[in-house]
Amino acid sequence: MSTEVAERVAAITQGDNPALQRRAMAKAITLLESTRADHRALGDALLTALLPHTGQSFRLGISGVPGVGKSTFIETLGLYLIGKGLRVAVLAIDPSSTVSGGSILGDKTRMEQLSMRTEAYIRPSPSSGTLGGVAEKTREAVLVCEAAGYDVVMVETVGVGQSEIAVHGMTDMFCVLQLPNAGDDLQAIKKGVMELADLVVINKADIDPNAATRAQAQITSSLRLLGMHGSHDQAARGALWQPRVIQISALLGHGVEAFWEAVSSYRQMQTSNGCLAMRREKQSLAWMWERIDHGLKLAFRSHPGVRDMLPAVQQQVASGQLAASTAARNLLQAQSSAAMIHKAD
Amino acid sequence: MSTEVAERVAAITQGDNPALQRRAMAKAITLLESTRADHRALGDALLTALLPHTGQSFRLGISGVPGVGKSTFIETLGLYLIGKGLRVAVLAIDPSSTVSGGSILGDKTRMEQLSMRTEAYIRPSPSSGTLGGVAEKTREAVLVCEAAGYDVVMVETVGVGQSEIAVHGMTDMFCVLQLPNAGDDLQAIKKGVMELADLVVINKADIDPNAATRAQAQITSSLRLLGMHGSHDQAARGALWQPRVIQISALLGHGVEAFWEAVSSYRQMQTSNGCLAMRREKQSLAWMWERIDHGLKLAFRSHPGVRDMLPAVQQQVASGQLAASTAARNLLQAQSSAAMIHKAD
Repeated sequence: MSTEVAERVAAITQGDNPALQRRAMAKAITLLESTRADHRALGDALLTALLPHTGQSFRLGISGVPGVGKSTFIETLGLYLIGKGLRVAVLAIDPSSTVSGGSILGDKTRMEQLSMRTEAYIRPSPSSGTLGGVAEKTREAVLVCEAAGYDVVMVETVGVGQSEIAVHGMTDMFCVLQLPNAGDDLQAIKKGVMELADLVVINKADIDPNAATRAQAQITSSLRLLGMHGSHDQAARGALWQPRVIQISALLGHGVEAFWEAVSSYRQMQTSNGCLAMRREKQSLAWMWERIDHGLKLAFRSHPGVRDMLPAVQQQVASGQLAASTAARNLLQAQSSAAMIHKAD
Repeated sequence: MSTEVAERVAAITQGDNPALQRRAMAKAITLLESTRADHRALGDALLTALLPHTGQSFRLGISGVPGVGKSTFIETLGLYLIGKGLRVAVLAIDPSSTVSGGSILGDKTRMEQLSMRTEAYIRPSPSSGTLGGVAEKTREAVLVCEAAGYDVVMVETVGVGQSEIAVHGMTDMFCVLQLPNAGDDLQAIKKGVMELADLVVINKADIDPNAATRAQAQITSSLRLLGMHGSHDQAARGALWQPRVIQISALLGHGVEAFWEAVSSYRQMQTSNGCLAMRREKQSLAWMWERIDHGLKLAFRSHPGVRDMLPAVQQQVASGQLAASTAARNLLQAQSSAAMIHKAD
């Protein structure tokens, strides 16, 4: 390990001076977010050195459509956990930020009280690159937070697109926040999010208690029906945990204790039956393959031989002159035979 | 074009001698299903030569869980269409056949009357390889059937796994058969199949007319709710077509005419507004990229440098000694730097 890496690791893992630690974390995450090759090499070395200090946190995924009250929920929960003596990190994956460059998730102004606490670390979503790239950076930021000894790392995302699958793939427990609206749960089922949920939280239950109770019953019955035919996630979750549905009002602070009790009993169960360790192992390997696939596609599309051929081939496929499968074989051959030519040089 | 290819094309596209044509089709499809490199090269040449003769059929996707009555439906529909003077081909994608080697879909004994008609061509699911490979072969078989002048090419699949997405990706219209059961539609929504459906058919409506009517109302309302938030498929389908839900009884022959009327009005609408051509173009390009991705993964996994490293790297990632993203970068480098070494030779 280089001296630079060792110093960075020490600054992140020591907790005596919170301000220094916080600065070291921010610098490390910025380094990991960089696209420069030298930064990337240093970042990889740092990450490897941090790994022995990771894995002790509980990783909690929080998802929900805009307006469901994620910020209020996370702030209320964060303050509650700090009150119990825990340190809390909040990270975010905002798919819209990859387009707009801005991020509405993990924004400190949305969690005013929590952001002022030294026991909390809040970082907005990385704001450039593809969703896969953003997810990779967030995943690495989780490890930095863990190495810094945060007890709970929350990763929030909005209930649109593929970002929920990404957050589900990097957390120990995936919670879906819902409004007590009819049709809301149908959307979640449609998007395949409901079957990812370990816990469904009906927020803003105080506004219309009857609607919230109806929604709770309806979602419980949907989860039961979905589970009957075997959720693809059932294996990772273990046979013992049945997804629960609870009502809360984050604004009034109602139900947060019950929420945390559910999380704790999930954590205990999944730790003792080995499912948690299994889930993390599966997540890491899945993530490795996801990044490999991404890298392969990138290399393919930027290969000179492929780049030369691609426009004409795409045109021929679109106009029906060339079968798609033949086109794929020709392009793959262009990539590998160019390597052959180099080989023969 | 070689003489061999030209002769094969002539035998497939000529319709004077149905028995000869049928034999030529079967030989062509067997050739396309072969994994031998010389067969593949000949197959690609044949496919390219057949392409100008394709595109005139209507490609109808039929999906439904086992027991929903797909065979009876396809047989009834096929005989009805033959009665209207049309020629009908039935192909299948059976994900289970890739495991068992056998195929229950497209089995002629399941469609006894239809299989005896010269106006019908029935071929079971390819029974080896990955789902992607099976789908590719079926896709190419569709083109052979089209070149042979079949008016309607049906592709059936069971309502499990990813095979429905594959069939949706190679047909002009995707129909989902449902039983009049509560919960059945929920499963389809969960699996994301419902939002792919251009037409939902409630089969066996005669058994319990009240349940069928309830299911029709429920699915119609679900489709409306799902559509409200923008189905990702809405663009391909065009703004004009709203997915319909109809009741039939394939066994009694009820509703088949109404089914075909719905198909015909869909076809007319999608042809005149250009959506059909757009959908086919998109499907071909998506298919090309799917096969490229598959080829890239295959080449990566069989690369000697990668194969050497992989077991140890996977072990390190699983045990938390190496970050997934770092592992991915290292493995990708192993593949490309091995090429570099060859280059420098």
